Order: sequence, then C-alpha cells, then structure tokens
Amino acid sequence: MSDPQEKRLTHLDETGKAVMVDVTEKDVTDRIAVCEGAVTMEPETLAMIVAGQAKKGDVIATARLAGIMAAKRTHELIPLCHPLALTKVAVDIEADESLPGLKVTAMARVASRTGVEMEALTAVSVACLTIYDMAKAVDRGMTISGIRLIEKSGGKSGDYRAKD
Amino acid sequence: MSDPQEKRLTHLDETGKAVMVDVTEKDVTDRIAVCEGAVTMEPETLAMIVAGQAKKGDVIATARLAGIMAAKRTHELIPLCHPLALTKVAVDIEADESLPGLKVTAMARVASRTGVEMEALTAVSVACLTIYDMAKAVDRGMTISGIRLIEKSGGKSGDYRAKD
Amino acid sequence: MSDPQEKRLTHLDETGKAVMVDVTEKDVTDRIAVCEGAVTMEPETLAMIVAGQAKKGDVIATARLAGIMAAKRTHELIPLCHPLALTKVAVDIEADESLPGLKVTAMARVASRTGVEMEALTAVSVACLTIYDMAKAVDRGMTISGIRLIEKSGGKSGDYRAKD
Amino acid sequence: MSDPQEKRLTHLDETGKAVMVDVTEKDVTDRIAVCEGAVTMEPETLAMIVAGQAKKGDVIATARLAGIMAAKRTHELIPLCHPLALTKVAVDIEADESLPGLKVTAMARVASRTGVEMEALTAVSVACLTIYDMAKAVDRGMTISGIRLIEKSGGKSGDYRAKD
Amino acid sequence: MSDPQEKRLTHLDETGKAVMVDVTEKDVTDRIAVCEGAVTMEPETLAMIVAGQAKKGDVIATARLAGIMAAKRTHELIPLCHPLALTKVAVDIEADESLPGLKVTAMARVASRTGVEMEALTAVSVACLTIYDMAKAVDRGMTISGIRLIEKSGGKSGDYRAKD
Amino acid sequence: MSDPQEKRLTHLDETGKAVMVDVTEKDVTDRIAVCEGAVTMEPETLAMIVAGQAKKGDVIATARLAGIMAAKRTHELIPLCHPLALTKVAVDIEADESLPGLKVTAMARVASRTGVEMEALTAVSVACLTIYDMAKAVDRGMTISGIRLIEKSGGKSGDYRAKD
Repeated sequence: MSDPQEKRLTHLDETGKAVMVDVTEKDVTDRIAVCEGAVTMEPETLAMIVAGQAKKGDVIATARLAGIMAAKRTHELIPLCHPLALTKVAVDIEADESLPGLKVTAMARVASRTGVEMEALTAVSVACLTIYDMAKAVDRGMTISGIRLIEKSGGKSGDYRAKD
Repeated sequence: MSDPQEKRLTHLDETGKAVMVDVTEKDVTDRIAVCEGAVTMEPETLAMIVAGQAKKGDVIATARLAGIMAAKRTHELIPLCHPLALTKVAVDIEADESLPGLKVTAMARVASRTGVEMEALTAVSVACLTIYDMAKAVDRGMTISGIRLIEKSGGKSGDYRAKD
Repeated sequence: MSDPQEKRLTHLDETGKAVMVDVTEKDVTDRIAVCEGAVTMEPETLAMIVAGQAKKGDVIATARLAGIMAAKRTHELIPLCHPLALTKVAVDIEADESLPGLKVTAMARVASRTGVEMEALTAVSVACLTIYDMAKAVDRGMTISGIRLIEKSGGKSGDYRAKD
Repeated sequence: MSDPQEKRLTHLDETGKAVMVDVTEKDVTDRIAVCEGAVTMEPETLAMIVAGQAKKGDVIATARLAGIMAAKRTHELIPLCHPLALTKVAVDIEADESLPGLKVTAMARVASRTGVEMEALTAVSVACLTIYDMAKAVDRGMTISGIRLIEKSGGKSGDYRAKD
Repeated sequence: MSDPQEKRLTHLDETGKAVMVDVTEKDVTDRIAVCEGAVTMEPETLAMIVAGQAKKGDVIATARLAGIMAAKRTHELIPLCHPLALTKVAVDIEADESLPGLKVTAMARVASRTGVEMEALTAVSVACLTIYDMAKAVDRGMTISGIRLIEKSGGKSGDYRAKD
Repeated sequence: MSDPQEKRLTHLDETGKAVMVDVTEKDVTDRIAVCEGAVTMEPETLAMIVAGQAKKGDVIATARLAGIMAAKRTHELIPLCHPLALTKVAVDIEADESLPGLKVTAMARVASRTGVEMEALTAVSVACLTIYDMAKAVDRGMTISGIRLIEKSGGKSGDYRAKD
C-alpha cells in the first residue's frame, strides 16, 4: 500500500457520512475486473460434486449462473455502488484437490465511468454461497475463503494486479 | 463428516437435476444460524476505518445494514433457497488487529420449515463486500476469508456447532 | 406521547447500533394498518387528471397499482422491516378540490408477528410519487404531504387511532 | 404554471393509456435534481434521535443509506420511469427544532436522456419512511410532509427552481 | 365454464378498481399447481440444443433454474398476487420432436391461504423465455405456446384438472 | 432458418458452459423489437373483461402496466441477458373475438450494444400472466399462446420480420 496519508476513504465525505462517489465527470472507458475465491470442503464432498459434475454438472452449473445473475444486482446489494450496464460477466469454477474444494474465478466488464471490481467480487461470493447451499446437506463445515481482486484495468486509478 | 455413502446432495434429484427441496411436510420450528467471516487488510486501512468509526461509524454501520438487507434477499440470490419470513437478522462487526482486519458475525432467525444458514452466510458475505467497497480506494489487496457456519439450531437435522 | 423515559427506539440496541427487532416470540395475530397522504397541485393539474380519469382513469389507476406493488416490497426498501406475507393491500385515491389535489389512502393487512404500518405508509408514498411522475410535465410544483398513520389494530402494543 | 392548454400529461398517450415516454431521441446531458421533505414529530422524539445521533448516528445514518439505495430502484417502483445509470445520489438529514423534526434533502445526478426528479423524490420519501420506521415505537403520530422538487437542471425542458 | 352470471372477476372490486383479494380469513392448506407450456422451433435448433444437452445440459439446465428463480418473484411481477413462502418449485423440460421443440412443466407448492397457479405459470413462462434467449441467435422464429394450468389442488375453490 | 452449420448457440462457450455474450465491442445503435402473444379464453370471460374495460378498463390497464414494469426487469429474470437502459416500452392489448381472447403486442427500444427482443417478449409474457391472474376466478382454462418476435431492427445481425 502506498502512503496512506495521501489516501482517503472515498465513500465517506469530509464530514464522515457515507456517500456515493460522484462519477459524472469521469471518462467512459472499457473497464475489466477479475476476482477469485474458493470453497474448501471435505475431500468426500468434492468427490461427490465432481462425480455429479461429470454426469450432470449441476452444482457447478447452478453456482456459475447464480454468480452471473448476482453480478447484475450488485448495486442493489452494495449500498454505495453505482448501477452499471454490464457488457459481460463470466464465472469459472474448477475443482482443486489441493484445497480440497472448488476455486471460483469471475470476470466483469463494462464501458462506464466507474470500475467493476464489486460486480466481479459479488459474482464470486454468490457462486461460493450457492456451492455451500447445494452441498451443505453433506458437509456443514465448508468454508468460503480467499475472495479477492486479481486484476483490473481501465479507469484513472490505473491497472492493478495482485502480487501472487 | 459422517459416512458419505449415507448422504446425498439434497439439491440434486435422482436424475441429477438441480431442484428446490420440498419442505412442505417439515415442521415449523424456531431455527437460528450464526455465521462468521472476515476482511483482512493493511494495518493502515484498519486504522483509517477505526478512526472513522470512532468519530462517525459509517463504514461499519453501512456494512452492517447491507448485511441485514441482503439476508432478506437470500432467496433471490441463491437459486434453490426457499423464501423465508425472517423474524430477526443481526450483524456485528469488530476490528481485529491480529488479522489485521474486520471480523463479521451474523445471526438469522425464523419460525419456519427450513433453516437459515444461507441467510446468515449471505449477511456475512454482503457485509464483507460492502467493507471492501468502502475501503477499496485505499487498499485493493483486501481479502474476504473464513466465511463459515458457526452454529445452528432447530430442525430435524439437529444442532450443529463448528469445532473451533 | 406518553412518558418518553419509558420508551426507547426499538431499532437501536443497547449499544446504539441499528438492529432488526426480534419478533420470533410475538404472537401471530391479524394486523391491519390504514395510512393516508396527499399530493397538492395546481387546480388545472387536478382538472386534467380528473378529466383523464373520467374517460380512462389512468393516472389514478396507475398510482393505485404502484402503491399496491410497492407495499409488497417494503422490506426491501426499509432496512429494518421484516418480510411479511401480506394478505391484503388496498389503495384508494380521490380528488379533493379543497387541497386542490389527490388524497391517497392505503390499507395493509397480515396475519403475522409484527405490524403493517410501514407497508401501508410505503403504499401511500409510492402512489403519491407515481402521481407526481405522471403529472410532472404540467406541474413541477406539486407537493406530497400529510403521510401518516390513521389507524392500526392487532399486536401487543394495542390499537391506535390518529386524533383527527 | 404556464398555460395548461399547451400542456398535456406526457405519460398518457393520445388515447389515454399510460405509456412510458420515448426518450430515445433526446440528448444525453448532465441532469441534476434536488428535492426535499420532512418528518415532523414530538419534540421528545427528535431529542431522542438527536441524542442517539450525537453518540452513534444510527437513525439518521440508516435513513440516509435507505434513501440512497431506494433512488437506485426508482424505475422498479414508479411504473413509467426509465432505468437510469445514476452517477451520484446524496441524502442529507438535519434536525430542525422549528418543525420539530428532521429535514431530508436529496440530490440525484445522471448523464442521460431523461431527468432525475423521481430518483431524488424517491430517495427523500424512503429516507422519511425509514425515520418513521425507526422511531415509530415512541411516536406513532409522526407525519411526512413537504416532499417536493427544489431545483433541477439539464434537459430540454430547462432549469427549474421552486419559488421559496 | 359454469354459469358466468354467478361469477365475477375477483380482482376487481364492486366499483371496478383493481384490488388484491383479501385472503386473511382463508384457511392455510397445502396447495399445489402444475402448469405446462412449450417452445416450438426449427428441428435443427432442437437438435442443437439436445446435442448440447447430451454433453453439458446447459440450455435446459439454465432454463430450469430461471423458471425456479422466477417463481419466487411472482408477486413482484404480477401486480395483485400475494407474496407466498413457497415450499417447493420444480421445473422439467423435455425435448418433443413432434412439436418440434421443448416442453416445459412446472409445479409449485405452498402451505398458504391462497393458490400457487401464478407461481407455476410464471416458472413456465420464464423458462420458455430463457430457452428463447439462449437459442435466438440460431432461430428467431421460435414461438412460446400452450402455457396453461394442468392441475391444482387445495383451497376452497376445489381441485381442478384440465380436460386433456 | 439459414444453414445451421454456420450457426451456434451464442450463449454457450466453446466448452459448453452457459455464458453472457461479451457485447463490449458492439456499436451503440438504436434497437427496436416488437413482439406479440395472446390469451385465449371462454367467450363469456372475454365479454366480462371487455364490459369491465368499457366501464373501468382495469384488467387491460393492469396487464399493460405489469408488462411495462416487467420489461425493465428482464435482466433479473433471464439469466444471460444484459441490463439495458430502456428508452421506451409500450404494451397494447386488444380484444379479439376470433380467438376468443386478448391479443398483446409489446415494443421495446434502446440505444445500446445489444438487442431488446427479450425485453419485448418479457413484457408480452407478464402482461398475459396478469390477464390470467385477474380472470382466473371465472376461467381456469385460459391458455397463453403465440408469444413470438414480430419485428426487430438495429444491430449487426440485421433487421428481422416474421413471415406472417
């Protein structure tokens, strides 16, 4: 993190109230964000989902759709987010036996005055929640972790890429 | 996890399609779920939020409200969740310098035929996302982690308590 | 108002945070609330709406439907409201030349653990906003006023009736 | 109001049916609207809220957020409103002992083909409803009044400023 | 249809205004509705979907989920429908080469004071719309037809079964 | 339909997963779609609605509004649809004694990177569902049929007009 003295919480105004940032004067540019997260679970739970996946794919297909649909509603859920006319949302989910669990990656894209990190993060979060919901009958101890921004481009604040 | 052979993914029917579980015949009982999660961040980011918090409380107050409001919309976000007439949702957020970051705990309660884990997990997730949104201008590397069920009671499947 | 010392803001907990009141232990009773409000406008605007009304009724019919539909979404709009399975919502709108303007009355009813004042007030508010929207091209100076609870029954806090 | 003969209710078509006005051909311009409203209450209720406000701010902070979030959903509530990609919404709430009560002001802004009066009015209305909800346990007689457009700019119909 | 003189449009009150029927006094009973509909298309389009279906199932799986999710939002879409705490929604989609096209069947269930026909019909409609959306790039001439109630049970008006 | 070999289901990616098509690079053009559908019913039901219509118009007026409002929420209902800032939605409903029943036509318009067929189809579908809902007490055998695209213009894929 660079010098925090130069920074401020842009969603709080000078008197400390939560505000929606005014983006009217910002340029409309092509903005992309990629985020990731994971659901860790018992190896038997992962095996069950993957076996189902091989045959019918429904846990993973359902979670992917839930993530895509949630991205479109980000501004309803996150109080100070702007509504955006998203041009693309993609969610990928892969089994990762080293967790063991499922790894979720989401990408959101828009031609707009403000970024799409929150849309991609919301897609990841809701996809993870949906995996939990569909597998919770066999494994209540699953944990959702590592939800973070991997990469973003577009906009005045410049591109960002997570360190590892 | 007990013997997985005896278990199945209740949201998939016998032919593997995703289904909403039929809860019509289940008893209406008092059901409670408590979940937790955290946002880890740079120590300077936490200090900024806490300083704001001491004076005006808005990052934390906003995230708490976002979590409560999201819990009420869980069935819109999670494809196979039942709509529930929640009787209580609470979200608590505390600074934890050992992370460093903010720890989020949510409780949901309902007198219903089905449990409220997903509502509590959704409250935690959206509160965490809101914290990320409000602080992302100063720290893009924040990570949302450890979202899990801590405790549930009510319903036929019995009470549950996470091991640690 | 009775002695404020005995009262407290039930949506704030003992430490001052906004909370959803826990209604789990409350009795399910038949609860009704009636609310009112008005849109005052230029006499010519009222005449135009009433003339349209005589022939096709659309300003008033549209506002009535908008109010009914909004009542069903009260818990999405008002952060600490509980979701309710409303059993009845009615909205009536009448021309009142003494304002001059339109008077809106709404009734909401539910068999539930908590009251329906907010649902009736939301119905009135959104019906008034819809009237404003449909007539604003001819009269930007319209004002929405007098939105208040007229009468409520059911629940432990007892019946209420506004003084005049 | 200027000559009503020259005016018509733009949301009714020539045969009197409610319609969404076609704004496709309008210019995209920077549009701003500022609206206000108030909740009048017993002086003791105001004192309670302000005291809470001094310490924790939650009634007012909650109402502000509710107003901002509602503005983003205006097109879902008001049947003939266009969906807009709002670039800014702000809500301010101040105690006014002369009412006595709370005065709510909201601003909405967008670069769009149509104005944002309804978004600002919806923000004011839902902020007022939230204040009512949070204080109703101590004062059922509160009244929401004076919701109106203060000022607008942008768009072909020209700027507007309320007379007083 | 039995004697229409004995019948009336229950959603219109005695003065002709659209109203939400008051169901407060009705019994809570187990109510089920089954509905159907179809999307007819070019045989090549059906073959494409079925081929995709054999491998990954996504057109049909996506349409099933969209139908289930839409059923939960019926009361937001249909102005005079009551919100219901659905206990089960199921959607089945099968290829029918005699159409040629896809046949959609939906079932909704609830323990409530009012029926679930609209929820099942909404599930069918939105599943059909989703099929159209996913295949429209190859066949703009698809038609959605035959959406109707097949069977209902529960409630005072008695059971119903379509003639063929 | 032209040669299906040259076509593919654009909502499925190369590995068969459902995806939102990336429209970022498409041109913003004026796009219009017109769709139709019908509700067939007993002649007595139609007579009842038309009689109500002559006097108060509420079945038809309610269905028109429901269709307009639903069009604005298409992207929430149809999983892979993009959110669009619609500039116009219109719904017309006419009695057709040859069915007998009501014929519904909807038009949607937008200046956007992607078409509005789904918005117009959703408007028709929800208008038809609303007619069913309002008349179902007198006629459970009504059927919704013939929902299809009549005409579209704008966008790279060229104009389309249904054959008859």
